[in-house]
Amino acid sequence: MEYEEPLFFTVMQYAESAERAVVDMVSGNPDWGAPEGIREGLREYAERDGADFQYPPSAGLRELRERVAARRGVDVERVVVTNGGAMANTLGMARALERCPGDDVLMADPVYPYYPGKAEMLGGVQRFVPVDETGGLDPADVRAAASDETACIVVNTPNNPTGRVYRAETMRELVAIAEEYDAMLVSDEVYDHFDYTGEFTSALEFDSERVVVTNSFSKSFAVTGFRVGYAVLPDRDAPAARTRNMLTNVATSRPAQAAVLDALKTTDASYHEANRERLRDRVETFTRALDDAGADYTTPEGAFYVLAKFPDYPGTMANAKRLVDEAGVAGMPGEAFGDARSDWLRFALVTPRVETAAERLIRHFN
Amino acid sequence: MEYEEPLFFTVMQYAESAERAVVDMVSGNPDWGAPEGIREGLREYAERDGADFQYPPSAGLRELRERVAARRGVDVERVVVTNGGAMANTLGMARALERCPGDDVLMADPVYPYYPGKAEMLGGVQRFVPVDETGGLDPADVRAAASDETACIVVNTPNNPTGRVYRAETMRELVAIAEEYDAMLVSDEVYDHFDYTGEFTSALEFDSERVVVTNSFSKSFAVTGFRVGYAVLPDRDAPAARTRNMLTNVATSRPAQAAVLDALKTTDASYHEANRERLRDRVETFTRALDDAGADYTTPEGAFYVLAKFPDYPGTMANAKRLVDEAGVAGMPGEAFGDARSDWLRFALVTPRVETAAERLIRHFN
Repeated sequence: MEYEEPLFFTVMQYAESAERAVVDMVSGNPDWGAPEGIREGLREYAERDGADFQYPPSAGLRELRERVAARRGVDVERVVVTNGGAMANTLGMARALERCPGDDVLMADPVYPYYPGKAEMLGGVQRFVPVDETGGLDPADVRAAASDETACIVVNTPNNPTGRVYRAETMRELVAIAEEYDAMLVSDEVYDHFDYTGEFTSALEFDSERVVVTNSFSKSFAVTGFRVGYAVLPDRDAPAARTRNMLTNVATSRPAQAAVLDALKTTDASYHEANRERLRDRVETFTRALDDAGADYTTPEGAFYVLAKFPDYPGTMANAKRLVDEAGVAGMPGEAFGDARSDWLRFALVTPRVETAAERLIRHFN
Repeated sequence: MEYEEPLFFTVMQYAESAERAVVDMVSGNPDWGAPEGIREGLREYAERDGADFQYPPSAGLRELRERVAARRGVDVERVVVTNGGAMANTLGMARALERCPGDDVLMADPVYPYYPGKAEMLGGVQRFVPVDETGGLDPADVRAAASDETACIVVNTPNNPTGRVYRAETMRELVAIAEEYDAMLVSDEVYDHFDYTGEFTSALEFDSERVVVTNSFSKSFAVTGFRVGYAVLPDRDAPAARTRNMLTNVATSRPAQAAVLDALKTTDASYHEANRERLRDRVETFTRALDDAGADYTTPEGAFYVLAKFPDYPGTMANAKRLVDEAGVAGMPGEAFGDARSDWLRFALVTPRVETAAERLIRHFN
């Protein structure tokens, strides 16, 4: 396995070295600030006894697991707290490859770039299912790609980068395909608080022995650096996932777990609603600008990314850099996400300067 | 891979459910408290801007890596900050298995119980080299066990559970064996601040392309729950380790890194010296009691564990529980560490109640 500097670092570094203040629409770091419970949780933790600085339970602080279990409506033993959604996905995919006879890992194209690397690291074989022309993942296409070789289907809903929220019938069908082919569905739902349709459907809504749901507090509490996430596994798979988590990391960082637990207790729905409102406004501002710039785009149903295609401007790294230089806006080249959207650029709406970016893009493309 | 509740949980739970206040000599959690910089670092971090709550660099905060690199006398690019020593060892062993033609992972017996599980998880084959009768690892035995199948030699110095500090000639020879057999040496040095001989020798002292050194702040700063460690890899292996770290965890928890960084800046040598002094006293108290109890034991040269063998009292789980019930002292069964010391019990000296334990053991075995 060779080290590849992730493409988004390349674009961000390029943007930072530019002369004018480029609008960074590359990184997925929420800009609206963590809820106060995060700070308060850290402050309280800092004053505790040194014994509280020692190993937490390997599967996570009990109270944190219980709150997750209650929210997800599952038994607490099915919950493993992990070092971010990343480790939750590692556990889910590793378990699928270990339990299921096949080696194939099915992923949508465009894909969140960590999934293919993770599949390879875990000994899986990468298989991609291109989205349809609307940006949606058609379960019929997944079924056509599935075979006895399939160990794992990995999906992300709400989706990065397409912004799609998979509906109940899609999720039901994905679960059915996993069951049919002796595979597992890993449903990464880290953007579940950013659903603008009201139709987000967790894979946990289907009672299946073949479903792993992963999540994290990185986006929902605006603490991507804390690294607290979780996996919910079937009863029969949770023990193996706990073992792998223990053997890999021993446990998840305790100050971060304490802060997240405090935030879970003290943050009410209005925090999340305000963040959705802010994003709805940004989506409107930005897509209106894309209309004016003559771009094709998909209005996000969830998450906080917009895929856009400008006339005669394919989403290559060269064009992403050109956009930095000539328009002062940094977006991710679509080619970073695979082939299906390589003509597009992805813009993250987690910056207060969306309006500036919108104006610059209109000017540049007119 | 099946989930196994680690044996030490079994003993600790048993001890907790006992009627009298059992002296816990099972867990390896330092009891002397973290340096003030840890608390101060957390407090300061809690007041920072939300941007500081976002993803740190995947390989670790730059300043933390630089301080580690300076202390170890290596280029900063060779340092990867990890989720504790656990993830550092995962990276080292994974890299050895990936780079080297063989699949065998050589480990001392008795062994720190996570190593064999990790070797298996990473697709390696477990091979054990029993220590000699003094508890030392004889490099000649390692050489005899090495072959073209050897990918990795994993050692721990100062050693848990034997308390041995490997001398320069041993380390030099281990490095030579790794080089000779196209393998890598992973030297886990998490107890390097707990050396009572002055002769601790890091594997980094030998200029070799075959050496990975792992370490953590868990024991040295008494923050096992924070999960901040690091691996120092050869130049040619660092990129692959960074990739694996990124694909597995994305990054290491930032509040914990910030706290450790603050502690590195503000903690002077007297903190570590006081901890060593405290442990020297405990070693003396405890080994004197073992003499009085008629036990065989090895006086630790480093780390904070004592292996002891009582007459007609093999280190089985049954006897560990009997010791809880009858003497009010909880130790780890030697069988948890392999075959070579299955007749022994391991006692951790990280409790202020060492004297009470000493008295109880004398009474019990007389």
